[in-house]
Amino acid sequence: MKETISNTVRAEGLIHALPYIQAHRGKIVVVKYGGNAMINADLKAAVIQDVIFMNCVGIKTVLVHGGGPEIEAMLNALGKESRFVQGLRYTDEETMEVVQMVLCGKVNKDITALIQRSGGKALGLSGIDGGLLQGKLLKSGGEDLGLVGEIETVNTQVLEQVLESGAIPVVSSVALGIGDAAGHTLNVNADTAAAQIAAALKAEKLVLMTDVQGILRNVQDPDSLIKQLPRKDLENLKKDGVVSKGMIPKTECCSLALDGGVKKAHIIDGRLPHALLIELFTDEGIGTMIEAEKNA
Amino acid sequence: MKETISNTVRAEGLIHALPYIQAHRGKIVVVKYGGNAMINADLKAAVIQDVIFMNCVGIKTVLVHGGGPEIEAMLNALGKESRFVQGLRYTDEETMEVVQMVLCGKVNKDITALIQRSGGKALGLSGIDGGLLQGKLLKSGGEDLGLVGEIETVNTQVLEQVLESGAIPVVSSVALGIGDAAGHTLNVNADTAAAQIAAALKAEKLVLMTDVQGILRNVQDPDSLIKQLPRKDLENLKKDGVVSKGMIPKTECCSLALDGGVKKAHIIDGRLPHALLIELFTDEGIGTMIEAEKNA
Amino acid sequence: MKETISNTVRAEGLIHALPYIQAHRGKIVVVKYGGNAMINADLKAAVIQDVIFMNCVGIKTVLVHGGGPEIEAMLNALGKESRFVQGLRYTDEETMEVVQMVLCGKVNKDITALIQRSGGKALGLSGIDGGLLQGKLLKSGGEDLGLVGEIETVNTQVLEQVLESGAIPVVSSVALGIGDAAGHTLNVNADTAAAQIAAALKAEKLVLMTDVQGILRNVQDPDSLIKQLPRKDLENLKKDGVVSKGMIPKTECCSLALDGGVKKAHIIDGRLPHALLIELFTDEGIGTMIEAEKNA
Amino acid sequence: MKETISNTVRAEGLIHALPYIQAHRGKIVVVKYGGNAMINADLKAAVIQDVIFMNCVGIKTVLVHGGGPEIEAMLNALGKESRFVQGLRYTDEETMEVVQMVLCGKVNKDITALIQRSGGKALGLSGIDGGLLQGKLLKSGGEDLGLVGEIETVNTQVLEQVLESGAIPVVSSVALGIGDAAGHTLNVNADTAAAQIAAALKAEKLVLMTDVQGILRNVQDPDSLIKQLPRKDLENLKKDGVVSKGMIPKTECCSLALDGGVKKAHIIDGRLPHALLIELFTDEGIGTMIEAEKNA
Amino acid sequence: MKETISNTVRAEGLIHALPYIQAHRGKIVVVKYGGNAMINADLKAAVIQDVIFMNCVGIKTVLVHGGGPEIEAMLNALGKESRFVQGLRYTDEETMEVVQMVLCGKVNKDITALIQRSGGKALGLSGIDGGLLQGKLLKSGGEDLGLVGEIETVNTQVLEQVLESGAIPVVSSVALGIGDAAGHTLNVNADTAAAQIAAALKAEKLVLMTDVQGILRNVQDPDSLIKQLPRKDLENLKKDGVVSKGMIPKTECCSLALDGGVKKAHIIDGRLPHALLIELFTDEGIGTMIEAEKNA
Amino acid sequence: MKETISNTVRAEGLIHALPYIQAHRGKIVVVKYGGNAMINADLKAAVIQDVIFMNCVGIKTVLVHGGGPEIEAMLNALGKESRFVQGLRYTDEETMEVVQMVLCGKVNKDITALIQRSGGKALGLSGIDGGLLQGKLLKSGGEDLGLVGEIETVNTQVLEQVLESGAIPVVSSVALGIGDAAGHTLNVNADTAAAQIAAALKAEKLVLMTDVQGILRNVQDPDSLIKQLPRKDLENLKKDGVVSKGMIPKTECCSLALDGGVKKAHIIDGRLPHALLIELFTDEGIGTMIEAEKNA
Repeated sequence: MKETISNTVRAEGLIHALPYIQAHRGKIVVVKYGGNAMINADLKAAVIQDVIFMNCVGIKTVLVHGGGPEIEAMLNALGKESRFVQGLRYTDEETMEVVQMVLCGKVNKDITALIQRSGGKALGLSGIDGGLLQGKLLKSGGEDLGLVGEIETVNTQVLEQVLESGAIPVVSSVALGIGDAAGHTLNVNADTAAAQIAAALKAEKLVLMTDVQGILRNVQDPDSLIKQLPRKDLENLKKDGVVSKGMIPKTECCSLALDGGVKKAHIIDGRLPHALLIELFTDEGIGTMIEAEKNA
Repeated sequence: MKETISNTVRAEGLIHALPYIQAHRGKIVVVKYGGNAMINADLKAAVIQDVIFMNCVGIKTVLVHGGGPEIEAMLNALGKESRFVQGLRYTDEETMEVVQMVLCGKVNKDITALIQRSGGKALGLSGIDGGLLQGKLLKSGGEDLGLVGEIETVNTQVLEQVLESGAIPVVSSVALGIGDAAGHTLNVNADTAAAQIAAALKAEKLVLMTDVQGILRNVQDPDSLIKQLPRKDLENLKKDGVVSKGMIPKTECCSLALDGGVKKAHIIDGRLPHALLIELFTDEGIGTMIEAEKNA
Repeated sequence: MKETISNTVRAEGLIHALPYIQAHRGKIVVVKYGGNAMINADLKAAVIQDVIFMNCVGIKTVLVHGGGPEIEAMLNALGKESRFVQGLRYTDEETMEVVQMVLCGKVNKDITALIQRSGGKALGLSGIDGGLLQGKLLKSGGEDLGLVGEIETVNTQVLEQVLESGAIPVVSSVALGIGDAAGHTLNVNADTAAAQIAAALKAEKLVLMTDVQGILRNVQDPDSLIKQLPRKDLENLKKDGVVSKGMIPKTECCSLALDGGVKKAHIIDGRLPHALLIELFTDEGIGTMIEAEKNA
Repeated sequence: MKETISNTVRAEGLIHALPYIQAHRGKIVVVKYGGNAMINADLKAAVIQDVIFMNCVGIKTVLVHGGGPEIEAMLNALGKESRFVQGLRYTDEETMEVVQMVLCGKVNKDITALIQRSGGKALGLSGIDGGLLQGKLLKSGGEDLGLVGEIETVNTQVLEQVLESGAIPVVSSVALGIGDAAGHTLNVNADTAAAQIAAALKAEKLVLMTDVQGILRNVQDPDSLIKQLPRKDLENLKKDGVVSKGMIPKTECCSLALDGGVKKAHIIDGRLPHALLIELFTDEGIGTMIEAEKNA
Repeated sequence: MKETISNTVRAEGLIHALPYIQAHRGKIVVVKYGGNAMINADLKAAVIQDVIFMNCVGIKTVLVHGGGPEIEAMLNALGKESRFVQGLRYTDEETMEVVQMVLCGKVNKDITALIQRSGGKALGLSGIDGGLLQGKLLKSGGEDLGLVGEIETVNTQVLEQVLESGAIPVVSSVALGIGDAAGHTLNVNADTAAAQIAAALKAEKLVLMTDVQGILRNVQDPDSLIKQLPRKDLENLKKDGVVSKGMIPKTECCSLALDGGVKKAHIIDGRLPHALLIELFTDEGIGTMIEAEKNA
Repeated sequence: MKETISNTVRAEGLIHALPYIQAHRGKIVVVKYGGNAMINADLKAAVIQDVIFMNCVGIKTVLVHGGGPEIEAMLNALGKESRFVQGLRYTDEETMEVVQMVLCGKVNKDITALIQRSGGKALGLSGIDGGLLQGKLLKSGGEDLGLVGEIETVNTQVLEQVLESGAIPVVSSVALGIGDAAGHTLNVNADTAAAQIAAALKAEKLVLMTDVQGILRNVQDPDSLIKQLPRKDLENLKKDGVVSKGMIPKTECCSLALDGGVKKAHIIDGRLPHALLIELFTDEGIGTMIEAEKNA
């Protein structure tokens, strides 16, 4: 009889999720996948399951990833020494070749293979494919960062066809160079790529998976998590120093997405197993949700 | 912290269901809805949620219903006395009018309204609409049963269009008379209607919701439930008296469906809340599953 | 030789209809079906033929019906006594149950069955199905009328799919309660329902079948029929008392439809056999036609 | 009151036609247009109306025409003398040029213009367009007839697209030469072209408009018309001399069509105004109907 | 070894054409076919090949033609004497009949047959078919020119369907009369017809094939060809007498097209074999190109 | 005048290619890209142009590639020593990681970027994406080769969608492991992958780009090239030693493709610039063509 009870609990769990499934079906959610959730094998498996679940219940899910640690490891293995400019790694031709190879050939295909093996359907793409992401050289304070790019145009056609076919597009943050970068491929920030893709697709949500809880009013106090935030409050939080350091670029990506037409941007803690499912399908979100609608 | 844990459990519940969702997506499941599950308000609410959940995860769900108790009550309220033939109620013109009115106007629209109110999309139909079910007078041992019919043809076009549009068809077991019944509508058995609809749609599953546990090897012993059964064993079980009384027509409906191309027929216990979800999305089925494939 | 002549006459009849068929093909016509035309068996048969003819020559026809007399009869049969408020029947829960049952289960399915039997294709729907008609409690001069509703939203998607599939939607004037009526179904006026459906579909025509000739300048004089009328003249006719009593709500429905985008509203005499065909396919209309275009 | 009565009669005329409309909708009917019906202005106007009516009620109508008298007139006007072989006009290059010009440029476009002017939609084609009719030189008893052809292949794609778009294809009996006729266009018999097109389209009906009543058992006796005929009886009628002279090629076209999959072939009297409508939409056909189904 | 070299040269020729193919694919080009290119057999064959090539590489090509010399010849053959008004041939009923017959039946079908024989797919149409070109009587300085028309409306639906099906529409410059020309067909100028069709289709290019090099700054000097020209410069060139005589109506057609939304209009020398291919697929255009964009 | 002549020659080149374009349009051609044509920058650019040209004229082109030299270089750079089994490199986990990374991340994306930059549209895929290529461990004479795989199933759905969208799929020869290889990705031979993809797509042609002329009857004599060959002759040529060494696996791939439904297999010399264009669009093929049809 024990199993019956437990199955009933499970069934109730599904029913608990039902209103959320009804709300999200048919919507586009762009997930920036990264941090521990991409390193720890158990977390990784859980993310893959979450994404397949999202796809199964009709959410059009786009997975965008970078892969800093894996690039680092490969550069080391190749004995390639890095030069840093303003604390950022200078991306020369050789480094770019490694970046492209690791992101598109290793990280991207590993994620894609995991989804396929778990019974999902995924297509591993990069910004190169179908001209999905096209960019120019990033000018950062006049300093030359080599083949680091900023995205000029997002060609959503490829993504739309893949989503329409029912598959999950997995996208590497590598762009096709145009203008001053013509003839090169470019290293672009994955958070920004995710934000720009979300904006171009007019996604319902952008979800950034991070290794922090979200925006904390007091960094020392885990209970000070800001759960919900209108986009217009971001500037003040920055002025007050609540949003600082590594959280600044994260919130800038959220702003970029929201200003481009995305409804909600989430900064969630990827260290929690099934963080995506908990965020999307239970009665309390996790991390910080920034909303476009509260602006006016 | 308690909620986080509980949410994690919920998320794991969803992940537990994932392989079942993956297996059933895009398939057609015909559910005969009846018994206690249609009378008890809590069970009713649970069935509606189950069906919406099934629809949400991409299962093409058809709900077929009768409504004996409600017909009985209305006949009584109208002071209409019934004549019985071989233990079956004789359906004269006046009775048929009440049957049609109660099934199509009360039971059908109540279910449809419940689904709509719960955020689902349903279309309440009968065998009359679009000529979905067309039948002749049922000849039962030479006795005249009045406007009791047996289905000759199932016109699946209407159902396919409704399923394609993403809505749940809710079907009353009333048929349009043809041949010797031309000009009349007919009272048809809902279990049989469900079985014939499942066969005509080449459904993956027929699920009969009953008020018993399933087929018990020993009716006295609830632990003697036969969980799985090849279709070919049904005859022997009937000979052995394991399948007897009210279970005989149920199994005949299952045979009808399986012989018509349905993969699996289930006799489940509708008295269990969320019996449909437990059957479809957990690791152990409930009730008895009869399989076509084990025939050969 | 007589038959040949007669057939030639018939052929000329078809050719006479040709320009009207060419003009109406592909357009939407919403017919409120009621009055004697729904009671008298011959008239009924003629209306069904007319509607099938309209459908056959490519007119997208929607049939909306009420069913006062049949509801009355059933309430009587059940010994249910009615309470009246301001001359209107108060619709309590029990009465509403009967209204829904009779309209959706008896009248609607009888019409649908007739069309199917005559070789047409019809789908019997109500405002409940697919959330087609959603309404709130009708506030009439502060008096509580029980579950009498007014329509807030018309969800045309279901109708469009049925029309697209080539079938005739037959719609009962029962609505799904929302807001203060959530959890209930509502009794809505069929003329108003037809008008609001016509407006929501941007229909070419709304045709109200009545038991009068149309608007008579002098009620005593059948020759004083107003055949054509710009919508803007309705107010003056009301002031002058030409439009009075039962004609007031009829013309209000016409105004509702015309203001909502319908091109022409017709009040026709359903007591004439084939009134619909005569109106649509011969050189002189019958009844009164009110036109939107003459407003400016 | 007189008009009302007359309109009612008209409406009844439409209703009389309804079952025929229901039976023919969506079917393909190929009409060979010719004889007096193509010369007399009133008959011509009536045929055009008939064809538009057929199109309006959903019959996919293909009009195939020749144009002997017009070709004759043009050859005379040009002072071109004809050579005859076995009683057939020898078609030299110059004659063929005139045939093509008159059929495709005069007759075809005149019919097309008439349909357009009457509110229909037509596309004037020939066997050249889209390779619709491709043929070789006709070998008739070893005698060279010049550019007279027999059709080898019918490319229905063009016709299907035109029918799908809702327009009426009007087809001249001129073919594109292949094989021994490569580089030339060919003069093909319009009856045969119509029969082969009907067969290639698996049409419901082939209708040959002629200047006779149909097949008469006794040519002298107009009352001896054979109204219905199984295809298998044709041979005997030929042996018996009932089918003789000009009727022989007509019945051979019918056989060709029926053997190619057409259901019914009609030889009708085009001298009757609205012969097509009378045949298709009244309770008694005119002329002779030959049926494929009675073969077995 | 010689062949291999020569094949390499051929391959390089294809590659040379590649950027032009990429630029023109999917665009609509309307070609007015006329002059020597329609008389000389070799030029004719070359034009047909060019048009098929254009079609093969994905350019949606519409061919519009007149046929003055052939009409002239037929009028002469028929001994029909012409009356001239202001130097223009007066088109009486009889002349119009010849115009229609020759253009639609001879010239149009000859071109269509040539394309089909060369492996292309073409549909020969006129302004009559599907109501493609509808016009009124042309008022030219108060003088009556008979059935000479000017186009009022272009119904592009037929052309779009033909282009969508992958075939090449070949269009005769004959229009269906409306208004004061109702009941007649009209003789319309082919250049103007091409320009109006190009405008209605929002074509990328209008190409007028002529028997001159293009616009010469000095008519005596073949080296004075104006290769490129903003539309706004046309007026000055006319004032300066550079655009004069027969070039005036040609440039007016170009203006008509450009003002209607066409991007570029070309006046090319049809006496050069493969003038169309050279213009479209090589690095230097031939003739004069007038551009819309340079206006502002 | 010189340019005009030269342009005429170019135009004639296009016309020369026309019949070949007409013959190949709409067909599927699978190209195995490899050898010098993938190393030499000029040859590479020429292949990319060829493939874009093929795509532009409507040939559905699939590009399959390996990348031995690049893998070798990366393994060396990483100081990874290789173990050889029967002359074949043993693919351990670490090696496989490099294979996947180099093929999918470097070679594949470089080709895709080149096509995009040249104005084409390409999607870089691997056998992992959408489960395109699924394989097991290759058993070669009982020896364990590590993660070297043989393809079990080709899932053409992804390729068909990409081809349908008008893009060029570029495919890395890496497969998703199933069965005994579950959980791994596999190194598969690119020639074999191309052959199996061609068979699964029922391609018109398989083209293997090699660094040899084709099959030479006498390896010493470049003039002994066998230009055309029925598939059935391959066995004898192998017995006779004409097909030997490296040519054996090439011809086996051709057989695999032809036996799977491909019409023609070509072994061409990729060292010739524009070898693909010359093969497809000129009057003499290059290399050896093996035909399925000559079998019988």
